[in-house]
Parts: sequence; structure tokens; C-alpha cells
Amino acid sequence: MNFCSHCGARVATLTPPGDHLPRFVCESCGTIHYQNPKLIVGCVPEYAGQILLCRRAIEPRLGYWTVPAGFMENGETLQQAAARESREEALADVEILSLLSVVHVIHAHQVHVFFRARLREPSFGPAPESLEVKLVPHAAIPWGELAFPSTEFTLRRYLEDLASGSDAHHFTEFDRRLQAGRVKP
Amino acid sequence: MNFCSHCGARVATLTPPGDHLPRFVCESCGTIHYQNPKLIVGCVPEYAGQILLCRRAIEPRLGYWTVPAGFMENGETLQQAAARESREEALADVEILSLLSVVHVIHAHQVHVFFRARLREPSFGPAPESLEVKLVPHAAIPWGELAFPSTEFTLRRYLEDLASGSDAHHFTEFDRRLQAGRVKP
Repeated sequence: MNFCSHCGARVATLTPPGDHLPRFVCESCGTIHYQNPKLIVGCVPEYAGQILLCRRAIEPRLGYWTVPAGFMENGETLQQAAARESREEALADVEILSLLSVVHVIHAHQVHVFFRARLREPSFGPAPESLEVKLVPHAAIPWGELAFPSTEFTLRRYLEDLASGSDAHHFTEFDRRLQAGRVKP
Repeated sequence: MNFCSHCGARVATLTPPGDHLPRFVCESCGTIHYQNPKLIVGCVPEYAGQILLCRRAIEPRLGYWTVPAGFMENGETLQQAAARESREEALADVEILSLLSVVHVIHAHQVHVFFRARLREPSFGPAPESLEVKLVPHAAIPWGELAFPSTEFTLRRYLEDLASGSDAHHFTEFDRRLQAGRVKP
């Protein structure tokens, strides 16, 4: 951030009175521009013992596989966001079920939230953001070609819970801030 | 948003190619400025059958009671954010336990997340953001003087679950977009 989005003046980086962290502050109009984590929301759509996966048509991780997920928008719930992303990326109509995983992607300033889901009809296809969309049997998940650590974490917990009959949710975190030279997911 | 935070030019409101919603777009440098929901994170700190409540020293809802909560920062997990807010608002050291509630505050573009928590020591006090901090027996919760609907939802579910021995989490939403003339929480 270089300029104040409210008045257009240059912003300074300083710790406001009573605060404990440096912020982007506009010394012209007084606006403090807070930077906060963003929510990425998705689901694991299941149909007849198979999982709906999408191969990404966009960066980052173009060509790699993931479950439908994307940035939460203003004006919707987490569940509505997860269902919308399935429509947008896989032309799929899903029923969102229980909370499955919450993944803190610290270096990317993101919180990823995934739900279990049920594909209502075996009808789907690649929207512009996907190269390919398909139903994959559990044993055929392409573990070596998954797009993100949060995708892998979520799918592994999903299968474990399915095997044990659990409907639990799982927290984890990934932090590559200290690993120089690595590509951000 | 009036100006591009990257280059300082005026932004336009338009729907970018391939998108489905209007965004703030800088036609000078090409930056699209997405607006997404922010995370508010808090907890219900319990000690010996009582709950730690704070009376707000700041707007909105100055003078009303709430549990420790605030905006999640970059670089932390939800649990770390909840513990930090207890330190900052109540000078309290808490152990964060299970997920309790997720409240979509649609009109405010916020997602509120609360955890159960345990106050490690009966040591606390008002930090600058609080007028007063105290341990309150369950039967003495000031229901009519709570700061936010998400506070009330969270405390009611907390007590119900305690009574039934449940460790569940609960989703809800509040949407005042269509109720003109009401004060935003």
C-alpha cells in the first residue's frame, strides 16, 4: 500500500497511539488502513463414493488438482461461499454439510475453511477457472498433483474421518515465512 | 474507496472481465481492489463456574458488556488471535479450547469466531479498551446489556452446551441490510 484509498495522499507506516503494530496510516486525512487475513472457502463434494476435483486453469498452481474453493465475498455466509465456488469452478450444485477443516496459511495472510458436501446430481464441468473437473474414487486421488497443502490436509482428514465414522473438524497451520526461496502456495 | 492504494489514481467501479461482481478497479495501473469479509475472533473465558466479561470503553456499544474479542491480525491463527484479545482487553491469560460459534454478520462484512476458553489464573483487569472486567456467575450474565447479537448468541449456546455436556459448534447469521434506520452492531 502506497496511497490512501480514501483521500489519495501518500501513506506512512507507523504505530498509531494505543496500538501495538505498525499500520499504513494517512497523515493527511487520518485514516488507518488495517490489513487483515482473508477467508478462502471451499468444500469436498462427494457423490456415490467419489470426490469432485478440479484441475486449475489459473495461477497459482495452474494444472494442479484441488477441491472447489475461493475467496469469500461480502454479503454471504461461509456455506454460501463454498456452494458458490462449486458452481463457479465446477458447474456443480452442492449441499454443504459439516465443517471439515480450518487451515491457517500464515505467510499468505489467509484462513482456509472447508466443509463436507454432497453433489446433488452427477452434473458438472469445467468453468473458465478449471481445465478439467472429474469425480475421482478415493483410491485415485492424485496426491502428488494437489495444488495446495490445505487441499491435501483437508482430503486426508476427510478420508480418515470417513473411515472412522467421525464428523469432526480439524485445525492446522502452514507458515513459510521463515523458509526463504520457496514458492508461496 | 476513492483512490488506488497502489498508484494513487482514482478508482472506477466496474465488473472486471470474467468476474461477476462490481469491484474497485484502477484503470491507470490495472489493480483490482477486492473487498472481503473480516474476521473478528474471541472466546468465552471460564474460571470456577464464572465467565470473564468486559464492559466496552470504546465505540461501538461503549458501556455494554461483551467477551474479549477483536479483529484477527495477519501472522496469527484464530486461536492466537482469541488469546491475544483476552490479554489486550482483559489482561487475562487464557487457554483456548474448542470452537464454539461462527456468526456471519452480513451487513458489517464480518465473520465472528468464538472459542471456549479457560482462564488460567483469576488475574485480570481493565485494559484501555475496557471500562471494567469481571468474573460473572452464569446466572448473573447481564443479558439486557450485552454489546452485540453475536455475544448473546455465543453465550446462550455456551450455557446450553454446558448444561447438556455438548462440545459442539454453532453457526448463525445476522443481516440488517434490509432493516433501514437500525444501528449497526
